[in-house]
Amino acid sequence: MKIADITVQEFRYTSRIGRDSEGHAHPGNLDLTGSLVTVVTDDGAEGHCLGGSKEFVEQIVRPRIVGKDPFHREYIWQDLAERTRRWNMDDKGLAAVDMALWDLAGKVTGQPVYKLIGAYRDKVKAYASTMVGDDIEGGLNTPEAYANFAETCVARGYKAIKIHSFYPPKAGAPDPRLDADICRAVRERVGPDIALMLDPYHDYNREEALYLGRELEKLEFAWYEEPMNEYSIASYVWLTQRLDIPVLAPEVALGRHHTRAEWIERGACDMLRVGVGDVGGITPSLKVIALAECFRMSMDVHGPHPGNLHLLGSMRNAEFFERGLLHPHVDYETPAPYLNSIHDPIDSDGYVQMPQAPGLGYDFNFEYIRDNAV
Amino acid sequence: MKIADITVQEFRYTSRIGRDSEGHAHPGNLDLTGSLVTVVTDDGAEGHCLGGSKEFVEQIVRPRIVGKDPFHREYIWQDLAERTRRWNMDDKGLAAVDMALWDLAGKVTGQPVYKLIGAYRDKVKAYASTMVGDDIEGGLNTPEAYANFAETCVARGYKAIKIHSFYPPKAGAPDPRLDADICRAVRERVGPDIALMLDPYHDYNREEALYLGRELEKLEFAWYEEPMNEYSIASYVWLTQRLDIPVLAPEVALGRHHTRAEWIERGACDMLRVGVGDVGGITPSLKVIALAECFRMSMDVHGPHPGNLHLLGSMRNAEFFERGLLHPHVDYETPAPYLNSIHDPIDSDGYVQMPQAPGLGYDFNFEYIRDNAV
Repeated sequence: MKIADITVQEFRYTSRIGRDSEGHAHPGNLDLTGSLVTVVTDDGAEGHCLGGSKEFVEQIVRPRIVGKDPFHREYIWQDLAERTRRWNMDDKGLAAVDMALWDLAGKVTGQPVYKLIGAYRDKVKAYASTMVGDDIEGGLNTPEAYANFAETCVARGYKAIKIHSFYPPKAGAPDPRLDADICRAVRERVGPDIALMLDPYHDYNREEALYLGRELEKLEFAWYEEPMNEYSIASYVWLTQRLDIPVLAPEVALGRHHTRAEWIERGACDMLRVGVGDVGGITPSLKVIALAECFRMSMDVHGPHPGNLHLLGSMRNAEFFERGLLHPHVDYETPAPYLNSIHDPIDSDGYVQMPQAPGLGYDFNFEYIRDNAV
Repeated sequence: MKIADITVQEFRYTSRIGRDSEGHAHPGNLDLTGSLVTVVTDDGAEGHCLGGSKEFVEQIVRPRIVGKDPFHREYIWQDLAERTRRWNMDDKGLAAVDMALWDLAGKVTGQPVYKLIGAYRDKVKAYASTMVGDDIEGGLNTPEAYANFAETCVARGYKAIKIHSFYPPKAGAPDPRLDADICRAVRERVGPDIALMLDPYHDYNREEALYLGRELEKLEFAWYEEPMNEYSIASYVWLTQRLDIPVLAPEVALGRHHTRAEWIERGACDMLRVGVGDVGGITPSLKVIALAECFRMSMDVHGPHPGNLHLLGSMRNAEFFERGLLHPHVDYETPAPYLNSIHDPIDSDGYVQMPQAPGLGYDFNFEYIRDNAV
């Protein structure tokens, strides 16, 4: 079996989000261009993944992978990863190609991806991951509004909630005392049995980060995520040595699996983060997960991507699937127009079942994508 | 699909090796008991692996895995690995169960194991791995005898040779000067273009190990393997800091992937070792390989097990397949009586092709195994 072609189809759709001046998501209805990577083999098998850069695929990927065995994922990933140095392409384009190959492998073998990897579980607990704060009436505009929304999430079945607190450009943010107010309001409302986590503003100084960490310890939060600039690893060493609450990182630091090894060797975090979009796909994510497992570290998997759901189906050292971003005014349960169904429906106990369809388990509306092609 | 049963069939055969008082292999014809692990599913699929302990499978494994999904390899491995603490079972029994599940997954999906993992290559360079020295005429009894045998290996196509030198109980061993004599004789005979490696006696003191390492540097050896007791990690830190030649370890140190993480964190080796029999199967080996890759370390894969061959088919950070142990008087090319063919034939360029049959690629003579059942 050989790869016959790889293409990127761009299409228009209206999202349910808007973005503020710092790039954070809020309710809205942005007109966006999506993209779909498709790998086709000489015997007609196909693999797909959302995302992917047309330029990267056409200039770099296609000339290098056409004619290759699509099961040579490790070779293809290593080869493309080397190419991204000069081209300065981000890891998201690489991730989409890698995951299209995993999707293809699943379809050819009749297995969901997490079983190809080697399954650990068939369902995973989800946490409700909130959007960042806003000025919307009935939104996430006050500590009490967060508490109200947390109560709604618990009523839906969630056993865990991760708060994204007040970030710039919201007036008054960043302020660790305001973050603590939000966390306190939520803890008081949901009680002691719901796991709570915080992902606050990501550029506090050391003293602010320590103050907020101590507040979270009093509130018995489960982890504390990226409160400082990740390029100051020394600051994370400093913070991690002081706090009892697990410090979770890194997310945005580039350098894929190599960077995660540096953080562990430096002792810069208590829990390690991975995400298919952050490190370049499932193939390198498996390396990061193995790395953490070798050092017996717990993890969080960043974001609700189907690839991340399959990672969680195959790993022991993480407890939760990140579901969201959620907001009182956004309907997360209805599929985007280019999908027939969502990949991560939640049950009344707060669990998401692993997709059982072969491959990644995307349920594309190919007609929509074709009709809205750019 | 559920696991319906797991069994261990023991059988008698006559090997082509004997063992000295320290357990090292030499030419011989020992009568041995082999074992074959077989996993069967409720729909009749089967997976096999040689090795495996009847006691471990019947007392620990069977009650825990019957009824489980055979694709839940990660769960099963973690669950069984925890059970081995109290029972003090070795990792080889666990490895055989894990690899029978990988074999089954390959057969169900129609893929060789290295493609399930994600392939990096379809063939791999082999090194000729010699037996340890002996007192056999025309064997490996003098430095010149090693040189003669090395010449034979090069004539067969090998581009690399790993020497196991003189070990106790051979008279005069251990002696780093004798080891250096052997290495010098082989280097002079094969010339500069053949990669040479040394695996000497494994309990030299620091000064002996440093002396021998310096000799290997002059002879441009590719790596230097386990010259000291592996439970003295500090000795390896000491040696690795001094030598330029890559120090390769650990092999026998227990503790699976966790131990390998300790060695890296301590800076106790330059190249990292893994082997399916040493760390408990393919599942934990993949973690060790990922660990090394995260730290950009090269590796060697220990031994010619089919599981190791599949690892090499899926990884970038190792160059060679260990073929052997070889000896002038032992025919490695003829299959053992319980096999119809060997899994690792070498071509005239010194490469071994990846097995293309679904699963691990064992070619069992089931009739022989049945006829010689214990």
